[in-house]
Amino acid sequence: MLNKIVIFGVGLIGGSFASALRKAGAVGEIVGVGRSTASLQRAKELGLIDRIATSVEDAMRNADLVLLAAPVAQTHAILSRIQPCLESQTVITDAGSIKGEVIAAAERALGAQIAQFVPGHPIAGRETTGPEAAIPDLYVGKKVVLTPLPQNSQEQLARVTQAWQLCGANVHMLSAQEHDTVFAAVSHLPHLLAFALVDECARRDNADTLFNYAASGFRDFTRIAGSSPEMWRDIALTNKAAILGELDTYLQQITALRAMLAASDGPALEAMFANAQNARHAWLQNIEKAEAQPEQDRDA
Amino acid sequence: MLNKIVIFGVGLIGGSFASALRKAGAVGEIVGVGRSTASLQRAKELGLIDRIATSVEDAMRNADLVLLAAPVAQTHAILSRIQPCLESQTVITDAGSIKGEVIAAAERALGAQIAQFVPGHPIAGRETTGPEAAIPDLYVGKKVVLTPLPQNSQEQLARVTQAWQLCGANVHMLSAQEHDTVFAAVSHLPHLLAFALVDECARRDNADTLFNYAASGFRDFTRIAGSSPEMWRDIALTNKAAILGELDTYLQQITALRAMLAASDGPALEAMFANAQNARHAWLQNIEKAEAQPEQDRDA
Repeated sequence: MLNKIVIFGVGLIGGSFASALRKAGAVGEIVGVGRSTASLQRAKELGLIDRIATSVEDAMRNADLVLLAAPVAQTHAILSRIQPCLESQTVITDAGSIKGEVIAAAERALGAQIAQFVPGHPIAGRETTGPEAAIPDLYVGKKVVLTPLPQNSQEQLARVTQAWQLCGANVHMLSAQEHDTVFAAVSHLPHLLAFALVDECARRDNADTLFNYAASGFRDFTRIAGSSPEMWRDIALTNKAAILGELDTYLQQITALRAMLAASDGPALEAMFANAQNARHAWLQNIEKAEAQPEQDRDA
Repeated sequence: MLNKIVIFGVGLIGGSFASALRKAGAVGEIVGVGRSTASLQRAKELGLIDRIATSVEDAMRNADLVLLAAPVAQTHAILSRIQPCLESQTVITDAGSIKGEVIAAAERALGAQIAQFVPGHPIAGRETTGPEAAIPDLYVGKKVVLTPLPQNSQEQLARVTQAWQLCGANVHMLSAQEHDTVFAAVSHLPHLLAFALVDECARRDNADTLFNYAASGFRDFTRIAGSSPEMWRDIALTNKAAILGELDTYLQQITALRAMLAASDGPALEAMFANAQNARHAWLQNIEKAEAQPEQDRDA
């Protein structure tokens, strides 16, 4: 039981976390903090939070658990405001898509109290944003990756793990570097590729004709190009080294594919396409298997 | 009213065409031809076709309309078998994703009778294939692109147009070259990019870890990498020149994106992402508007 949790950023991610813990009957008071008064008011009306903090000091008083669910670029500013009133029993976690830069920002802001920060990343989302989009089931069956610091105590790590498990999530542990490398490949690169494709098509003289005949394949391929430009600018810049590596690998792969096609090498093209089809099929089967047995998928 | 139509290839595309015309009460007899006896039997059991042709000659006798819905690479072989028994009242159309190479194959096979061939491409599909996947509503509200030949008569063009309109489709006209250029950009390129990404991930030592953390963004981006390797090998090879041009344009775009990121040029990255987000948003709004007013969208 958490007597008091504090959510910085009461949108989809923070609001759903609050809503899930409330539904699980696992929390006393939920306090919201944020830049937008309108969002905070709406979160209170929707019952996501019990009250809006009058100040960071007020929010942090007697807090058991703090979730940072604001854009990653605000991490240092928020933690700098938290630090002067951070009590020893409080554990802070976050929901940022990048872990290396978040940890660096946390170290600068928290100094010796860095042990109280357990970095995390829930692998869940929806097309919509804001408190209206928050739902208690957002994390059910989803993965949450924690990238614990050497300074974290077992008790602190367990508190954050249990909170996410109460939301229905399967908690996994990775190093921050492994996290950022893996997500550069399977999330950040595809986002940049989708943005780049739509941007390029939109700049052409015949863009209207192109979009007129674009169908469901194009629609799914580019769904992630509908994501927030500001958020993805920040992710690109904060995970720059890993993403540059992924872009180079992909440029090599496309150059190799181009050479196969230029040589009319049908067997090589078919082998590449078949390898991709098989790998994707096996992946989807594993997902279905994991979803059928959610308890066995829990690492922690 | 079409007294007799013939479907070469009674899978998703051919079977749905037959099923839609039947539902519209627009056809007398539907005859199926194909390489797979099992598929033909199943199509007959499902009521997609009235009977299986005993020979191509039998199929073509007194036919009003023929749809080629077999893989594009079989176009020349099928039309070569049709040509000796092609009667003057019969119109042939096809459903191939490529038009330039299909027309070249048709000219070689049909010679002076090329006037009876009206090339077409329905922009519709589903994840599943085969006669079991055929549904009468597959083409409702979807686009069908016809790329008429100078030799086609108005009557022949009208017969094919009306057949697709009876299926509920909106018929558009493009030149074959324009068709192949447009679809290289909005369909063929994204398919190759998706195949390339999954193939590259699957070859890595840490492929299991990568796929373990791949989420819904990766899933949608790579959905089209689940497509048929043989079909996409054929499409790539038959639309090679246009696709090579698209690959070069995209390689330039990714190289430019890489340079922005290497220079930590946040404003340039955000401008590219925002242009893509805006273009995609406007495109989806146009689709929704068109779907709300299907009749006004019909070009023909």
